[in-house]
Amino acid sequence: MIKIGIVGYGNLGRGVECALQFCPDMSLVGIFTRRNPQCVKSHTNVSVYKEEELFNMQGQIDVLILCGGSAKDLPLQSRKWAKYYHIVDSFDTHEKINAHYDAVDKSCLENKHVGIISVGWDPGLNSMNRLLFESILPLGMSYTFWGKGVSQGHSDAVRQIDGVLDARAYTLPIEESLNRVRQGENPILTPRQRHLRECFVVAKESANKEEIKQKIKTMPSYFCEYETRVYFVTQEELNTNHQKLNHGGIVLRSGTTGFEKEHKCVMEYKLKLDSNPEFTSSVLVAYARAAYRLASLGQFGCKTVFDIPPALLHVESGEDLRKKIL
Amino acid sequence: MIKIGIVGYGNLGRGVECALQFCPDMSLVGIFTRRNPQCVKSHTNVSVYKEEELFNMQGQIDVLILCGGSAKDLPLQSRKWAKYYHIVDSFDTHEKINAHYDAVDKSCLENKHVGIISVGWDPGLNSMNRLLFESILPLGMSYTFWGKGVSQGHSDAVRQIDGVLDARAYTLPIEESLNRVRQGENPILTPRQRHLRECFVVAKESANKEEIKQKIKTMPSYFCEYETRVYFVTQEELNTNHQKLNHGGIVLRSGTTGFEKEHKCVMEYKLKLDSNPEFTSSVLVAYARAAYRLASLGQFGCKTVFDIPPALLHVESGEDLRKKIL
Repeated sequence: MIKIGIVGYGNLGRGVECALQFCPDMSLVGIFTRRNPQCVKSHTNVSVYKEEELFNMQGQIDVLILCGGSAKDLPLQSRKWAKYYHIVDSFDTHEKINAHYDAVDKSCLENKHVGIISVGWDPGLNSMNRLLFESILPLGMSYTFWGKGVSQGHSDAVRQIDGVLDARAYTLPIEESLNRVRQGENPILTPRQRHLRECFVVAKESANKEEIKQKIKTMPSYFCEYETRVYFVTQEELNTNHQKLNHGGIVLRSGTTGFEKEHKCVMEYKLKLDSNPEFTSSVLVAYARAAYRLASLGQFGCKTVFDIPPALLHVESGEDLRKKIL
Repeated sequence: MIKIGIVGYGNLGRGVECALQFCPDMSLVGIFTRRNPQCVKSHTNVSVYKEEELFNMQGQIDVLILCGGSAKDLPLQSRKWAKYYHIVDSFDTHEKINAHYDAVDKSCLENKHVGIISVGWDPGLNSMNRLLFESILPLGMSYTFWGKGVSQGHSDAVRQIDGVLDARAYTLPIEESLNRVRQGENPILTPRQRHLRECFVVAKESANKEEIKQKIKTMPSYFCEYETRVYFVTQEELNTNHQKLNHGGIVLRSGTTGFEKEHKCVMEYKLKLDSNPEFTSSVLVAYARAAYRLASLGQFGCKTVFDIPPALLHVESGEDLRKKIL
């Protein structure tokens, strides 16, 4: 059995706790939190510990699945806990991935551990498909579409506007552009042609809604490049209709083969998720299995989804996989 | 530069020759054939040799890409040439894959070589996605749909019928079933609900067409489980309208997450190919790069797509891939 610890018990941590139930080769040792453990009730009645307890639990846990945020938690936690355990995280600040990689790699190599970072669907599975597609079709164009799903960053940005009490911002793919890519047209698409944004906003009664709408639509980097639709709703409507965690993503590569580049190929990878965090958790759990197995093979250091042989993710043996799935 | 040899110069071998042109890190040393080399004209003017010349060319070639058939060529060629070179093949006789694996593994391990077998899209990329999907969503159902594309085996079967001069049989996915899977319905689908078959048949003038039609539709293992549409055409029509090599494939997994299994996830992988053999060749070439790199890492033996870290397929460095694609 692979012994797992969960660090951080939000949506992602709960998703990991859930996903582990369906892995016959893994057992959950405990949940580790910065909060008062007495105030945290786990769903499966597994023990909840103060995070610092991890300093004393080496040998009892093989792989820690780090479920904190990329902004403040993981940059510190991953490198710290990689000194004591194999770790998996979902670090998703794209421009800082190589720095994070170097820090985790150092902790891992000094302590003969494996750390798999930036695991999830984007970064993660989507990235892996972009890589595979490009490797196989060097002549072509790659496209990534997101949605429909909530963009947390964009929701936060709207909430910063004066007069806004609450807000949820969605990203949606533009179906027409998606279909052009699927037909092998290789269009050059502006941000506005790839996605549109929808904002559901709860405004103060006294607020000027027209002004809020304009501020959203013209907000640099977040909304000004897109068609943005703004809808004002009550807090109750927002709570009732806009708390879902669904999301989706599509990676496409449209390329050519043949001496005259006369043959089109379109490769597509698509995810449709009712629960974005639960799916990410399921990916983390599969890569925790790979981390443990890589360690048994003596392949220490920091890794990403790019570095993991797919067979290490599946509970069955290589021979069975070749027989049943290949 | 990775030095490549192509063994066998049919559709697949020509596709490899073409795909190599777009790989800046690989060079084609020669094409190796059982035919008289004087009678084989390569597309890029690369040298054509008698296959036996390979006994004398160790050191001049790193990886051999074996482009023969799975029925008769590869069972002999792969294990033989894996003694002398790293090899990649597209062995696709599902029920014999583990035996082929063991034979190639032995040749490889005894001679410190890498052999990657069963590379292509199915077996190959489709299989890899079945594995990934199952690893991440253990609760769920997997589906594979093929087509529209020619089934060589089914075409051959029709040509065996008395009175048939020539024939092409297509496999098509049933769109309605595909859409049910995409909606997360998890239907149990019979063969008839997954695919339909279309046969274009050239009959002898004297033949009883109704009888041929019945023989096709009721043929065990090949057609009797499916709705099969039979069309009689002239040889000229068959030659004009039915020589395309297009194909396609879709792998889906529809599963659930959440403590109450309340959230659906649908993962989908889709290929739409104008040229089935050229695409397979492009996959073979990417895995030839991986074979060479695995050998440099000292990881000898037989492998399949399940065993290859994705980063080894791409020409760029790990650091660049993390920066640009992750």
